[in-house]
Amino acid sequence: MNIIITGAAGFLGQRLAAALLQNNVLPFERLILADINTPRPPLEDARVRCVALDLSQPQAAETLIDADCGVLFHLAAIVSSHAESDFDLGMQVNFDATRQLLEVARHKAPAMKFIFTSSLAVFGGELPALIDDGCAVTPQSSYGTQKAMCELLINDYARKGFVDGRVLRLPTISVRPGKPNKAASSFASGIIREPLHGEAAVCPVSPELTLWLSSPGRVVQNFIHAATLPASAFGVSRTVNLPGISVSVRQMLAALREVAGEQVSSLVRFEPDEAINRIVASWPGNFDVRRALAMGFGADEDFQQAIRAFLRDEQAQGEG
Amino acid sequence: MNIIITGAAGFLGQRLAAALLQNNVLPFERLILADINTPRPPLEDARVRCVALDLSQPQAAETLIDADCGVLFHLAAIVSSHAESDFDLGMQVNFDATRQLLEVARHKAPAMKFIFTSSLAVFGGELPALIDDGCAVTPQSSYGTQKAMCELLINDYARKGFVDGRVLRLPTISVRPGKPNKAASSFASGIIREPLHGEAAVCPVSPELTLWLSSPGRVVQNFIHAATLPASAFGVSRTVNLPGISVSVRQMLAALREVAGEQVSSLVRFEPDEAINRIVASWPGNFDVRRALAMGFGADEDFQQAIRAFLRDEQAQGEG
Ligand SMILES: NC(=O)c1ccc[n+]([C@@H]2O[C@H](COP(=O)([O-])OP(=O)(O)OC[C@H]3O[C@@H](n4cnc5c(N)ncnc54)[C@H](O)[C@@H]3O)[C@@H](O)[C@H]2O)c1
Ligand SMILES: NC(=O)c1ccc[n+]([C@@H]2O[C@H](COP(=O)([O-])OP(=O)(O)OC[C@H]3O[C@@H](n4cnc5c(N)ncnc54)[C@H](O)[C@@H]3O)[C@@H](O)[C@H]2O)c1
Repeated sequence: MNIIITGAAGFLGQRLAAALLQNNVLPFERLILADINTPRPPLEDARVRCVALDLSQPQAAETLIDADCGVLFHLAAIVSSHAESDFDLGMQVNFDATRQLLEVARHKAPAMKFIFTSSLAVFGGELPALIDDGCAVTPQSSYGTQKAMCELLINDYARKGFVDGRVLRLPTISVRPGKPNKAASSFASGIIREPLHGEAAVCPVSPELTLWLSSPGRVVQNFIHAATLPASAFGVSRTVNLPGISVSVRQMLAALREVAGEQVSSLVRFEPDEAINRIVASWPGNFDVRRALAMGFGADEDFQQAIRAFLRDEQAQGEG
Repeated sequence: MNIIITGAAGFLGQRLAAALLQNNVLPFERLILADINTPRPPLEDARVRCVALDLSQPQAAETLIDADCGVLFHLAAIVSSHAESDFDLGMQVNFDATRQLLEVARHKAPAMKFIFTSSLAVFGGELPALIDDGCAVTPQSSYGTQKAMCELLINDYARKGFVDGRVLRLPTISVRPGKPNKAASSFASGIIREPLHGEAAVCPVSPELTLWLSSPGRVVQNFIHAATLPASAFGVSRTVNLPGISVSVRQMLAALREVAGEQVSSLVRFEPDEAINRIVASWPGNFDVRRALAMGFGADEDFQQAIRAFLRDEQAQGEG
């Protein structure tokens, strides 16, 4: 059995690859890492193959997938602000490339577990305080629209037995290492990461804004869990709102102060950015995830834990 | 200003064309009727152009739309049972052709009112007794999936100002004249129409099944109304659940008895068909349509009225 990760040069793709190689929850022969930017293997391991591939090209899925593929983690995407400014690129990568992968899987490897990373950006507009599985999807961004269209298509492919699709709606990931990116939610990591590095950070949204967060380590555990579940665990819908924690920006900064001190947390200043705010404020801040918890998906305990996990990861990197 | 109707050789397309030519609610210079089967003009009128066009062909939308198009009623579709048995054809016509029309409209006529006919088949699975605008879309058919994907795309095109999109979720249409078709809901007209013609009819679903219905005359009025509303009337979402009436199959047959007598209504016998039942039973039977009513959309008074309208239409046809 082979595992494929698309978007494997990306943030979560690299972490997922490392986790699959390190623990043996999901045994495999080969781990194929595909990305438009040639992915690096996160560890030296003879099972890894790295493939440079633009998934928006017509033959890409055909090249990538064969009958030995047992699990495909489809993470490649154009993130939110980028998909908003370049609508056509977003459609090509976020929607068309996903459809292409589904089509090839249907004809070459219909038993494949097709794990898709969706987002809370499928929600928007006037929302109830607590989002549950019965809540209408009303995206206020092209990114959210493209993810929502993929969710529908994957559910239909699964219903028809074309492929064993599973859709995970991710919380916003924080704390994310590295540089700011073009996701509208980039600040949700920046306001923690930059101060911890002794740098000033700008918060473009109100301190009252509530976010729905998961640490990267936790979300990667949930990815792998999704690939171990039997199809029957999903019931009537293949789409799951993953667990997260509901915290306001103010609470995030209080957690930062608690973990790293007042001097660090005071490096954040507020400068409202209407474009960012419009997108992020339309995302829900709290979910009823009883179904996901019953299926065995998990959440962080609190945001302090997510900050400490980030510091531990940075230290390990420094030593590694 | 020109008006285009796609699917204009179809049942609702023909009725819509006739209504646009007969009343002057929506003034226009040219009425372009397009369909894969060459449409007939419903009346002699110098303003009508008929175009034979397969919308699933790559250049079709480009051929059809020019800058003079002010309103496009996009009705062409592969109906429910047919899209379920031929998944690829359904994707091509119901989804890809719609996307192609949106793309050409975006570049050639962004002010165009793009009226899309969706369906209550976007709903399915475990549903609340009364569907409102906040209810999640969980289609249990490929037809419903394809319609739901179009809804999302049209809302995004409208949000971005690419085109002035409007999505109408139609109730099941009854009483529909003519022959049974490949829609799973075909029986909802057959059990009335065939007995009125003195023929036996088979009902494949339980008498307790509740349907959400609209007469064809009423739904065509609602199409035209949708094209006269300002964009602002739609508020946060371009998708509207059109008004209908909630009636059980038993009540439909009681209405038939009331209008046409016991001898006619006794021509219906029940023969459960699991394939049909699975699709139709997943559709909702009742909606909260306060928003649609406030926007000026209307419903039939009761099902008796819908039967009488059918009889009047047949008589007019016979005389015409
Ligand atoms: N990080 C979050 O907060 C978050 C939240 C919700 C959902 N998600 C989803 O999780 C997935 C992974 O997110 P991430 O944070 O690792 O994003 P990322 O931007 O770090 O990684 C995405 C990867 O996709 C690759 N890619 C883009 N276009 C491609 C193409 N045409 N062909 C092949 N590869 C291409 C990029 O090169 C990049 O390496 C994405 O689908 C994202 O939408 C992330
Ligand atoms: N009648 C209903 O109960 C009902 C309910 C909900 C939604 N709708 C929707 O309303 C619309 C009209 O429905 P109808 O009952 O008139 O359907 P219909 O089947 O009578 O008409 C559809 C028309 O589309 C045409 N068509 C199919 N493929 C085409 C292609 N590739 N290129 C060009 N034309 C093509 C067909 O030739 C046909 O004339 C459809 O979009 C349907 O999904 C109908």
